[in-house]
Formats: sequence, C-alpha cells, structure tokens
Amino acid sequence: MDVKEIYAKEEKLIGTEIELQGWVRNHRKQKDFGFIAFSDGTCFKTLQIVYDKDIKDFLEVQKIHVGSSIHIKGILEKSPKANQSVEVQANEISLINDAGEDYPIQAKQHSREFLREQAYLRPRTNLFQAVFRVRNIAAFAIHTYFQEKGFLYVNTPLITGNDGEGAGEMFQVTTLDLLNLPKTEKGDIDFKEDFFSSKVGLTVTGQLEAEAFAHAFKNVYTFGPTFRAENSNTQKHASEFWMIEPEMCFCDINGLMDLEEDMLKFVVKEVLDKAKEELAFLDQFVEKGLIDKLNRLVESTFTRITHHDVITLLKKANVKWEFEPEYGQDIATEHEKYLTEYFNGPVFVTSWPKDIKAFYMKMNEDNETVAAVDLEVPGAGELMGGSQREEDYQKLLCRMRELGMKEEGLEWYLNLRKYGGCVHSGFGMGFERLLIYLTGVDNIRDVIPFPRTPGNCLF
Amino acid sequence: MDVKEIYAKEEKLIGTEIELQGWVRNHRKQKDFGFIAFSDGTCFKTLQIVYDKDIKDFLEVQKIHVGSSIHIKGILEKSPKANQSVEVQANEISLINDAGEDYPIQAKQHSREFLREQAYLRPRTNLFQAVFRVRNIAAFAIHTYFQEKGFLYVNTPLITGNDGEGAGEMFQVTTLDLLNLPKTEKGDIDFKEDFFSSKVGLTVTGQLEAEAFAHAFKNVYTFGPTFRAENSNTQKHASEFWMIEPEMCFCDINGLMDLEEDMLKFVVKEVLDKAKEELAFLDQFVEKGLIDKLNRLVESTFTRITHHDVITLLKKANVKWEFEPEYGQDIATEHEKYLTEYFNGPVFVTSWPKDIKAFYMKMNEDNETVAAVDLEVPGAGELMGGSQREEDYQKLLCRMRELGMKEEGLEWYLNLRKYGGCVHSGFGMGFERLLIYLTGVDNIRDVIPFPRTPGNCLF
Repeated sequence: MDVKEIYAKEEKLIGTEIELQGWVRNHRKQKDFGFIAFSDGTCFKTLQIVYDKDIKDFLEVQKIHVGSSIHIKGILEKSPKANQSVEVQANEISLINDAGEDYPIQAKQHSREFLREQAYLRPRTNLFQAVFRVRNIAAFAIHTYFQEKGFLYVNTPLITGNDGEGAGEMFQVTTLDLLNLPKTEKGDIDFKEDFFSSKVGLTVTGQLEAEAFAHAFKNVYTFGPTFRAENSNTQKHASEFWMIEPEMCFCDINGLMDLEEDMLKFVVKEVLDKAKEELAFLDQFVEKGLIDKLNRLVESTFTRITHHDVITLLKKANVKWEFEPEYGQDIATEHEKYLTEYFNGPVFVTSWPKDIKAFYMKMNEDNETVAAVDLEVPGAGELMGGSQREEDYQKLLCRMRELGMKEEGLEWYLNLRKYGGCVHSGFGMGFERLLIYLTGVDNIRDVIPFPRTPGNCLF
Repeated sequence: MDVKEIYAKEEKLIGTEIELQGWVRNHRKQKDFGFIAFSDGTCFKTLQIVYDKDIKDFLEVQKIHVGSSIHIKGILEKSPKANQSVEVQANEISLINDAGEDYPIQAKQHSREFLREQAYLRPRTNLFQAVFRVRNIAAFAIHTYFQEKGFLYVNTPLITGNDGEGAGEMFQVTTLDLLNLPKTEKGDIDFKEDFFSSKVGLTVTGQLEAEAFAHAFKNVYTFGPTFRAENSNTQKHASEFWMIEPEMCFCDINGLMDLEEDMLKFVVKEVLDKAKEELAFLDQFVEKGLIDKLNRLVESTFTRITHHDVITLLKKANVKWEFEPEYGQDIATEHEKYLTEYFNGPVFVTSWPKDIKAFYMKMNEDNETVAAVDLEVPGAGELMGGSQREEDYQKLLCRMRELGMKEEGLEWYLNLRKYGGCVHSGFGMGFERLLIYLTGVDNIRDVIPFPRTPGNCLF
C-alpha cells in the first residue's frame, strides 16, 4: 500500500489497518504523544501519523529524526483537523535507517542556494517535490500530445560534427590524451587520431536531423538533451538542458503557429488537471496567481503580428525604453513584456529581419525578412522559436555562402531540398523554459534535477 | 487528408475525391498509364496511385522520378488487386520537387552498409520505415508503462564528473583550447581553467542520480542517452545509445524481477498491437518467425535461477563449449543461448559472483555473491541487467575501498545510505538492444537514426 492509494480510496479505507514504508518529513513530539509528517514519495501530500505513549518502544519512537526511513502499521482514521482528511493512528513505528542529527534537510525553510548544493537531497522538500512532479507530468503530456497527433519520436544524435545553427558555442568531445596530443604536419591537432576520426562536439540542436526524418515520416519530434558552452551565468541559461523540436513537412508557418498554440494549451491543461496539489503549493509559496495565469493561457487567443508592426507599435507606445526599438533589430525583454500586456495574452511575432535569424529560415518575397516566428508568453518571455524552413536548394546554398558558412558536412542537409523537398516548418522549445513558466520558479537551476552551469558540474 | 486516415476510413471514402501530398516510392510506367507507390510518411503502407493518358500533362507525369515530392488529386476506388484494398484514380498529379535521376534510394534492394552512408535518406525505405516506427512505438510504450505505474520520469545529467560504474570508458568534455592547454605546476592539465572548473565527461549511466531521486519519489525511471568510449566495433555496440534505468525504493531483487518481466511483456504487447504492418514486413523480410517469437515471450513464464545453478547445469550439459563454464566466472553468449533454449523462455540469472559485478550491488550473506540479476531472453541474449543495491553505508564504503575506488565525488551517493536509506533495486536496459530484439535487425547501427561508432560521426 502507498500514500497515493490511501488518499485515492480514503473513504473505503477508514477504520482498516494499513502498513507503509517511507520517510519522516517532520516530527513533532509532545510528552505523551507525537506527530510524524510522513511521505513515501508516491504523491505530493504527506500523511499524518499520530502515536501516543502506548505505542511499542515509545521512547525509541520519539528519538526518530527527520529524514529517517520508517515502517509503520496503524489504523486509518478521519482526521479531526480541518486541513487534512485522514490520519493514521499508529500501532507500530519501526526505524529502518536513522538520518541522524546532521541530516541537512531539516523541517524549516532552506535557501534555494543551499538546496542546490544538496541537489541529491532537495527532491525531499515540498518545493522540489512539486517542481519535479510537474516536470514529469509536463514531459509525458508532451509525448502524449505528439503521439496522439501521429508524430514520430526521433532521437537525434548528441555527439556531432555539425554546429547546428552556426552560432551556439559547443563543447568538444574527445578521447585524445590531452597531455600527449597528436599533431598534423601543420601543427594542428590531428583529429584523425581521435575516437571518431574527426573533430566532434555536443549538439546545440537536433533540428537538422529532425528535418531529414520529417521528409520520411511527415511529422516528427525530438525530446532530448542539448548543450551550450556559453559562459552565461544567468537565471535562464544552463549548459545542459532538454529541448522539444517538432518538424513538419507540407506545413507552412501558419500551420506551425496553429500547432504551437494547440500544443502549449494541451500541456498546460494537462498540468492543471494532473498537478492540482503541486500547483496549489506553488501558487501559495512561489508565484501568487500561478493557477490563474495558466488558466488564462488556456482560454486566450494568441495574437499574430509581424516584427515590423511590433516595432511600429513599440515606437508609438508612451514608454521610456531602456533599449530603443528599431526596425531590423531584435526586441528586448522589456518589449516582449509590453507586447504580451498590450495584447493581454501570448503573441506570435513573425517575419523577422533575416540578419538576426538563422541561415535555414525561409526567405520572404521581400528578400529582407524570413518566415520566422517567436512565441512571446505573458510571464515567460520567448517560449518557442520556429520558422518555415528554406526548401529551395539554390536559395539555401546562396544564403549559406552569403553568411560564409561551409557546405562541408552539410551537403546532406542541402540535399533534402533536392530529393523530394517540400514546404516544411518546425520549432524548438526549451523544456526548462516551459517549466519555469509552469512552476513559477525563476531559476533554471531549480527545475533541472542536477543542473550544469559554468563552473558547476556537481553530482 | 493523409494516407493513414484513408486506410482508417477507406470504406467511407471510396468514391470520394481525395487530395494528398507526399513522396514517390516507386513509379511503374506503361505506354498509356502508370502506377505510383505513394507515401506521405503517416503510415507504413504505401497507397497506389493509378493514372492514365487522359490525365493532365501525361507526358510530364510519366517523367516523375522516384523520391520526388508530389501533389495529387483523385478518386479513391476499390482496388482490383488482391494485395491492396484501395487505390487512387488520379485526376491530377503535380510535381513539387523533382528528385532527379541521381536520387540514391531507388526502388530496389540496397545493402544496409550503403544505406548507413545514406542515413539521412534511409528512413524512406520500407525497412527503416518499419524499424523507426517500432522504435517510436516502443519508446512511448515504455513511458506509458512507467507513468501508469506511478514512476517519476527523471532526467539525469549527461555531463558528469562521475564515472558511474568505475568501469565504462568515458568521453572527455572540454572547452579548453587544445593547442594552448593550461597546466598546473606539476605539469598536469589544469581543469580548474576548464568550463566546469573540473574534469568532466559524458555519463555511462544515470543510475546513481536516479537512486537519489528514488529516495524521494520511491519509484523513478530515466530514459535518455548514455555513452561509451570503448573501441568496440561490434554489431551490438554503439558509442551513443539510449538507456532506460528504473530505480525503486522499498523493493528487493524479487520485486525487481517482477517489474522487469511485467514491463517487458507490456512493451512487447504494445508493439504487437500497434505495429502490425511493420512486424509483418520484418517477419517476412528480416527475421522469419519474429511475430511468433514475440508472442511466445508474452505467453512465457520467466525462469529464475542462481548463477551457481546455471554453471552446474552448463557443466552437466552434453555440449562441447568453446568457453568452459566455471563457478565464479561470467557466462558466454553460447551459454546464454543454451539456457534460454533449455528453459524454453526468458531466464533471470541471480546471485552473481561479486568480483565480476559492480561495486554498488548488495552483498549476499555468503559474502561471495551479490544480489545481481541478468535477464537472458531467447534471441536477444542479455537484455537487462540489474541488482538490489547495497543500502548499508559501511558495507558499501568497505567494498569501494576494497576495489580501490575513491570516495571523492561519491560522498553524496554514500550519504543516501545514511539519510533515510532503505532496501532498493534497479535495472538498466539498453533501448537499442530491445529494438534489435523487437525488429530482428541484427546491427545496432540499423536501429539508431544516426549511429555513432568508432571512426563514424556522420550527419
């Protein structure tokens, strides 16, 4: 039996004997009795265990420390307290493993910084129970959404010779002996001697390979780790994170926006539906109004507006900007915030200046903008970035040359435009960005089980 | 509309006009008519498109090459052929993108070696359509199984300072300039200057971190990439592959075996149910008897036997072994095969000699064997490897010291035994090993979208 089951069937189980194994989250001792907040990890809520001095080894039971694992037997009873439905009147509480007095996670408020250093223990706190349960629910909701729509899940490679966007900084991967590196005659590192006989690193995107699979399966998605070797020590950047990258053939940028909106609403609805207790906790202690925010998203209509019209709107606004909005330029966080407030909901910004977007995006007829789209979400900023892809071989080749990119290693990607190419589109969503939005937790380090950031690779 | 939908509703759609976009898999031309085997990627089966010389631009249509993308309009009709239910009588076929005459994937048998070099195009063949559809179905079945059982999906880190089992060879990950490496006074590489301020590599397992999460959520599972830098150029080894690693608290080795058996049967049943056409194809062209093999697994009882008794059995067998079975030694592939044939089904081999198993496995009372279990499956060999974990702090510490392992960096792992430790167990299953079993395809390179093996990191 487990706690989840008890709460699910509590009416039926009242008066019966139950037996549980789990952990002590809190232990309040009185002279003749005591209360244990008990968790076995199967649901967010703890279960109150009550014992009195008639229990076997009362004095030993009173010594049980927070964090210890215990085995209990008792009778499930209606709780006299207003904030809980049932509790267990214990007949027997036995210690499995004593956490001792130095157990780092005591029943008090710990700082998030401290808990990051205890990342292997922090899932035992309410905050991280909530966060990682939401993470689990959101991950499965994403899979469920795409599977129901007939998308094929594809695992694109992590180790790669491509640098994807030609932009993100990559980690190098090697098995060479760094103290004894093989050199070419010219004095460069001789990567022919390396494990893969070439220079490789960790991928920054699975998009290019996903495009290849979309040209065979029409609709595909990735959901896997990606990496950035950028030395960005911000709340929103991690060196290792998970991305969802759907790619659809015979789909233009309008179809893409339809999918993005539909998927996001589905995932938010699933979380609202399946993480009620977790969201209630997060709403109370992390982001006031979280549940309202998520409900509003589900009910909202997503606005679609071009980058040009956004700049016009921003210029007209009676706001003193830190960064002056300019045609042809990227928009800043303050602009994103203004936009989502102005439209009172999520906003798709389309038709971006080509020079601030990636090489593979479809050139519009004006030859100045590309069919890119960023989704700005209230309280989240840019949540998804996507585009229709350039399906014209010559145009793509020209654009790559214009940007000084090498075709070497990307011939296959170009060939997708030669061998049965078609209109196709895709987007990327950082899973942790979504989780920051869903949980209200503001630091990416707190939505990743064991975060990797510059200077930090603990556990 | 798509081909999947057409086959699903074919009775209703006969006689109606349909419109499709997709790719030419084959094109047979006669003087006055032609047949196109058409795929839009939405299901395994192709759809036959028939046209005759009355079609608009008949001569142009006849020039359409295999691999091209096309747009068709026509009427769905009952097919006169026995091996297909419906076909499309085309009114209009227009070319979207011509694949040309040099398209590498012609409608003929290509060698798997050739197709590996064309990994970006091979999903357009029947074989790889089948394989990657099975991969997708199996992946979602695994998630579904664990979610229904209340397991929490946890994403353990890929970049790590731990070498996991103390065994697997790891890829190094660095952002140091290899031509200008910082050195310590002693002349070693100064990893303090590296991105993470320490020496890191790509993980060989997520187990240790999964154990930490199991001690908060009871039942968890990973499903993500792992890496091996071993120079093994075999059919069964890849340098990058996906693993499933469940971990359960308050679960001993018997509960572990129950779960392994139940999960495997669930996944096989899902694939049998949802990949009927794919399996029929694989049964016919790749492994005769595949479907029977899978059905037998679902119906079978898994035998449980100790390593000691296995050796006794093998020694008694009237077989001339290449490798003589010995107490205290590992068993070879020929032994595994004999075992599964002898018991006519899957076999759990338990109680392994401690010296050939990992440090974290629970020591049995004999102090000679550990509570490890390998699952041997007919036609697959070792499919899963797991164990009850040593939950005793002192015993684990002693074993690590015995093996000359450093505690440094693993203090947190040891601490799991100090802070509310409990009986717990887990296993690992290589996803691609499972796929080799499910598809009958014998080379791991052919069940991974873009495989990475020594000397090969294409795409």
